[in-house]
Amino acid sequence: MHTVEVAAQTGAVVTLSAGQRLRIIDVEGGQVADLFAVSTDDHRQWLSTSATRTAARRLFPAVGEQFLSGDYQPLLTFERDDSPGVHDMLAAPCSLAMYAALGHVGPHASCTANFLSCAERVGCRRAVVPDPVNFFQNMPARADGTFTPLPAPSAAGDSVTLRAETEVHVIVAACAMDLEAINGTRCTALQLRVH
Amino acid sequence: MHTVEVAAQTGAVVTLSAGQRLRIIDVEGGQVADLFAVSTDDHRQWLSTSATRTAARRLFPAVGEQFLSGDYQPLLTFERDDSPGVHDMLAAPCSLAMYAALGHVGPHASCTANFLSCAERVGCRRAVVPDPVNFFQNMPARADGTFTPLPAPSAAGDSVTLRAETEVHVIVAACAMDLEAINGTRCTALQLRVH
Repeated sequence: MHTVEVAAQTGAVVTLSAGQRLRIIDVEGGQVADLFAVSTDDHRQWLSTSATRTAARRLFPAVGEQFLSGDYQPLLTFERDDSPGVHDMLAAPCSLAMYAALGHVGPHASCTANFLSCAERVGCRRAVVPDPVNFFQNMPARADGTFTPLPAPSAAGDSVTLRAETEVHVIVAACAMDLEAINGTRCTALQLRVH
Repeated sequence: MHTVEVAAQTGAVVTLSAGQRLRIIDVEGGQVADLFAVSTDDHRQWLSTSATRTAARRLFPAVGEQFLSGDYQPLLTFERDDSPGVHDMLAAPCSLAMYAALGHVGPHASCTANFLSCAERVGCRRAVVPDPVNFFQNMPARADGTFTPLPAPSAAGDSVTLRAETEVHVIVAACAMDLEAINGTRCTALQLRVH
């Protein structure tokens, strides 16, 4: 077992062998974890939220669901959920462009930048940023199709556990959003445990 | 004005100048139109359904909404809807991998292959296939987050009209799906009119 601390508004990458488990812990509670995954064999095969949604016929992930690559191959299985079970698979990752669109001026940490630097660290030099699975993010959709970003309902110590179905780089970003209240009143840290 | 016929299970590409309008007509009714758009200036700036959803806070597009690039720049505006108003912005485009996951063996036309060949025709040689806007596609989400693909409710002659906000390549595929009933009982043609 090894542990990786993900400081507030930063990202980390771990490489899992098939069968290994990753637990993502919301240390203080109320913190969104953006998750990206890329096959070590073929860097063009990353976790596709649209393929996953289309295959599962669900907007949001649930225990037992497999996270698929664009080629419909399982990369990760959502094995265990020790949280209120509220997760998102619709939102784009935060980015400097998103912050600018929200009226922010100047530099800002983002899940997009954290993904890109982590991906480069494991040799994935890609111009494209996939849409992430946003664990603990609370963005329920109404019957008319509208949705509102709400604070993450996870408590301190809540976690989700994923099992690798193949060798895969997993990048987790402690979401940097502080202009909308999805991370509660402030951005905090995550902890990763690889079993 | 010029007209482009899009035969069943094929795709077509048109290049719009800023201010030009594209009308997409469902010729016989019940046919899904997968739409992709790429800025002519920068081929890395394509229509991002997740940026569009995140900015509009809606799962599905509606008249007045702007379709944004990954950098949150408007590419197209949804100007007019002469259809029942049912469209999708959640599903992955059909692909050989999707057909294989559904149990199909052997070759099959797909929106993914049609996108790639049209994109290459206008000089976009990209390995990545964006998620499309699926006009006329009927995939309503329930309150519990599950959804079911249903037949497109559009009638013969129904259409949507988009206005280009910048110079943009627009690729439209007459969806090739015939294993699920989203295109009714058979795949049919679309017509494009550029004004």
